[in-house]
Amino acid sequence: MPAVRESRLAGGIREAGQPPAAAGGGRGIDLMAFDEERTRGASGGDVRLRGFGDLVAFGEALEWVARHGSPLDVEEVDVAEAVGRVLAAPLHATADLPPFDRVSDDGYAVCSGETIGAGTYNPLLLELREAPGLSPGGAILVAAGMPLPRGADAVMPFGEAQANGRALEVLGSVAEGVGIEQRGVQLRSGATLAPVGRALRPQDLAVLASLGVERVSVVRRPGVKLVIAAAKGDARCPPPDANGPMLRALVERDGGIALPAGTEGDHRAAIREAMAAQGGDLLLAVGRTGTGPDDEASLALAGAGQLDVHGIAVRPGGSAGMGRAGELPVILLPGDPLACLCAYELFAGAMIRRMGGRDPRLPHAALEAEVSRKIVSTIGFTEVCQVRLVDGRVEPTGSPGSGGIASALRADGFVVVPAPLEGYAPGARVLVHLHS
Amino acid sequence: MPAVRESRLAGGIREAGQPPAAAGGGRGIDLMAFDEERTRGASGGDVRLRGFGDLVAFGEALEWVARHGSPLDVEEVDVAEAVGRVLAAPLHATADLPPFDRVSDDGYAVCSGETIGAGTYNPLLLELREAPGLSPGGAILVAAGMPLPRGADAVMPFGEAQANGRALEVLGSVAEGVGIEQRGVQLRSGATLAPVGRALRPQDLAVLASLGVERVSVVRRPGVKLVIAAAKGDARCPPPDANGPMLRALVERDGGIALPAGTEGDHRAAIREAMAAQGGDLLLAVGRTGTGPDDEASLALAGAGQLDVHGIAVRPGGSAGMGRAGELPVILLPGDPLACLCAYELFAGAMIRRMGGRDPRLPHAALEAEVSRKIVSTIGFTEVCQVRLVDGRVEPTGSPGSGGIASALRADGFVVVPAPLEGYAPGARVLVHLHS
Repeated sequence: MPAVRESRLAGGIREAGQPPAAAGGGRGIDLMAFDEERTRGASGGDVRLRGFGDLVAFGEALEWVARHGSPLDVEEVDVAEAVGRVLAAPLHATADLPPFDRVSDDGYAVCSGETIGAGTYNPLLLELREAPGLSPGGAILVAAGMPLPRGADAVMPFGEAQANGRALEVLGSVAEGVGIEQRGVQLRSGATLAPVGRALRPQDLAVLASLGVERVSVVRRPGVKLVIAAAKGDARCPPPDANGPMLRALVERDGGIALPAGTEGDHRAAIREAMAAQGGDLLLAVGRTGTGPDDEASLALAGAGQLDVHGIAVRPGGSAGMGRAGELPVILLPGDPLACLCAYELFAGAMIRRMGGRDPRLPHAALEAEVSRKIVSTIGFTEVCQVRLVDGRVEPTGSPGSGGIASALRADGFVVVPAPLEGYAPGARVLVHLHS
Repeated sequence: MPAVRESRLAGGIREAGQPPAAAGGGRGIDLMAFDEERTRGASGGDVRLRGFGDLVAFGEALEWVARHGSPLDVEEVDVAEAVGRVLAAPLHATADLPPFDRVSDDGYAVCSGETIGAGTYNPLLLELREAPGLSPGGAILVAAGMPLPRGADAVMPFGEAQANGRALEVLGSVAEGVGIEQRGVQLRSGATLAPVGRALRPQDLAVLASLGVERVSVVRRPGVKLVIAAAKGDARCPPPDANGPMLRALVERDGGIALPAGTEGDHRAAIREAMAAQGGDLLLAVGRTGTGPDDEASLALAGAGQLDVHGIAVRPGGSAGMGRAGELPVILLPGDPLACLCAYELFAGAMIRRMGGRDPRLPHAALEAEVSRKIVSTIGFTEVCQVRLVDGRVEPTGSPGSGGIASALRADGFVVVPAPLEGYAPGARVLVHLHS
């Protein structure tokens, strides 16, 4: 609808001798460069001052993520450093566990057959011996975890036997196998321990270490380059970078490595530079993704790479985009912190988890609960609604357009409302993804 | 029951010229020192070769944890590094958010009153102006996030207006407030953001950064000294330290800092040294906690500090203990990896979370599900049963005494069976704490 090809706008009426207003300074926008580029015809995907045309459906954007988010290559890491890492190959037991018949309870190793019939009124007298081997009439003092002495087949508990010098008075019988953990009873050599894609847990490390495994093959962690546009505040008092700390924490949560990148004055140049630079498996360019005159992120991507998706039917975060610079996938995230958070959770997080070999679905714990106050959504948009739980029931923490990132601070979690719905009425049951 | 004060046992019959068997070497135990100490009367709390007497109830051990696990002192950290940290003071908004009336949608800032009656058949002509101020008959090109130009009270979307040079043709009306986010609508200065004890989440950092907050007061992370006994393998092939990697991961999970400590040959000396050394808020001494002849951990603690609890009615992990060396709390964890894991989860984890100002309850996500295969437990013992979920139903992954740490590797989570119960029959509904 809007045709602005020939516009000169505010920037065009700058008087001679007057300095150009700082981009993003909040005091007007220099549109000279903008217009010149537009009239030169370099407007492929340029939505500035036009608005998005047809929005890309949520599912289609997710398909882009699935298509371009393949697990990275494999690396070997020390078991001691492997917690949270994702297995690149199925894990098999390299030995029996335990590796030998082992004492599992403190006591006296005996030959169980000799204790038959022993009791308080019929004590059995055994002779305390040294390990390693047990001969008839003998017993050996043992502690849990030790290899079982040869010839023994049970461990008599301290409560059932009294030592006196080298003599052991046995006051009960013990069945074969008591107090013993047989070789391989926990794990047989060759048994499958865990499948590809399993993120290793603390106890898994203990099993691997018990088996004598020192290194394990895992999917390399995705390196995520972050280029963050300066916030649009008052030029006299530029607001801090609100998205950087949040995104770095989210990237780490999803198993990525946030690669250092500062807030840049010239966002377009910074994106181009990051696209061209070596290193990193994914580029997140944050801010300047909308339809305003200074929204240059998509142009930077379209100019030096390829813009596949821009403008998605999700809210907040619909100005997100996706594309590639050579082999490097690039995701554009909106600069508004709540929109940035939502677009990250819906798309960038899934991309990082895919690249790291993880389940691409939302990693949040989730619970089903009943809506107590109406959740409003626009038909046609997949909407992310921040909610709190009050007495186990769900209510929004912000309303569309007035919640902002503070609504996510107030929230216990969020509800994703599918595009065909106009929200949820009180009484509806919804799935709440819990912020952790 | 068992009286062993005068025993000489295996160690006593070592012949002259024969080297003492290596402690824990699995080939016999040198009991000379043991006996000498015992006969000197330094046997306070010495359960070796006797067994535990009355076990301490689970709840009583938890009370010890509650009594000695107070939140540590406060430190200030950068907001950018504060994710996961626990607030030491309630957090209040230091400013309005947004800090000024702000543009929330890209478009043209106008005075809404002037657009009344404008339409496709009755276009309104405005003149595009420079910021900062709007005068009658003017409009200013704006982008989301910018401060609202003075005099404007709405933003006309691009779809409703066409620019042509300095002229803007307005093809519709816009209501006051549209496309604008008013100062303080997200947060009012002074509003409570989060209470004491809240672990900061990624989006919380974004709010703090948006408010210009740079530092935040959080509870100091507990430094946890780990002293781990060498495993009891075959002396010719000492098994690796299975508990260290697991415990370090668990300590980090619970917000603690695992302080480096190696596996020591002489566990008793290592514990004494760690108790005396500066630094650290908690000591976890791992291994040698049972009733066997080489189980010296409790003696080390009783000798150089105070042993408050030893032998708890829980399984696995009942040989755990608790005490103090001066101000330093000490928890003894069993050396068997599964017992170590369970005692950590029941006691040490709660201690670390308390010291770090966190909720002491189990941090695992939990779900209720139906038992499909009997869970066996002994009356009188609080038991931790490793379970897997098959088609949403719960079954044990090991049986008492034959599961070992491999049963935790196979498990999706665990069920805690209270002491008065002898387990759960199929059909019972139980709470499963999920391993993550």
